[in-house]
Amino acid sequence: MMIDHIGIAVDALDDAVKLYRRILKISKEEFAVSQDEKVKTALLWFDNGMLELLEPAGREGAVADFIKKRGPGIHHIAVSVDNLDDSLRKASENGFAVVPPGARRGIRGNRVAFIHPRSLKGVLLELCETTTQK
Amino acid sequence: MMIDHIGIAVDALDDAVKLYRRILKISKEEFAVSQDEKVKTALLWFDNGMLELLEPAGREGAVADFIKKRGPGIHHIAVSVDNLDDSLRKASENGFAVVPPGARRGIRGNRVAFIHPRSLKGVLLELCETTTQK
Repeated sequence: MMIDHIGIAVDALDDAVKLYRRILKISKEEFAVSQDEKVKTALLWFDNGMLELLEPAGREGAVADFIKKRGPGIHHIAVSVDNLDDSLRKASENGFAVVPPGARRGIRGNRVAFIHPRSLKGVLLELCETTTQK
Repeated sequence: MMIDHIGIAVDALDDAVKLYRRILKISKEEFAVSQDEKVKTALLWFDNGMLELLEPAGREGAVADFIKKRGPGIHHIAVSVDNLDDSLRKASENGFAVVPPGARRGIRGNRVAFIHPRSLKGVLLELCETTTQK
């Protein structure tokens, strides 16, 4: 199992990217907007994974709510799985809360789902059906 | 540059490890106690990095303070650097707050230092002089 990325909620994407460039050696940068997730994103790649910076694209959405409540900071961890449907079924059988109940399309077009922090001691865990590629 | 690990503050280490075993495929587990950091730790290894679960070993310390303030959850991100002294000097020159001011020994005996969340938009970043090994 691979750690795919770490999601970080930011209040100003461009400023955040400039800041990370000054402290980390980034291999590659990708930018995208997700209407579904209501976020603007920057993917900052490293040799073995990436940071996914997330800026709310408006006042609504999970990331906007997170920042309102806790301020900018680390938002979620994502791991890659071979078969998301299998993983979600096992997670549900083991008592983990899957949100939303089924898979959806993530920012990179891959199928993703989340384990709610209430069933993982405060940690929001994303399961993504993808392999980590540079 | 490699992502080394993700630090997660937990209130009960054994329970947390059991929980993570039920949702993730862990390659290897290591356990340690750090008197300096006032934490009990479990390192949960994956194919490309690890989760570092941190339980306060008492009522004091940075992790105990974090849990008191925000509850259990994702605590920090760590990246590996080739030369910590060089990295810290550059970080300071670029205006990042290094805490403590110099390097210290981390849980695995390697040299580490932290960038304070106030200079990285709410993210606590650990720089560790090590390579990611399984």
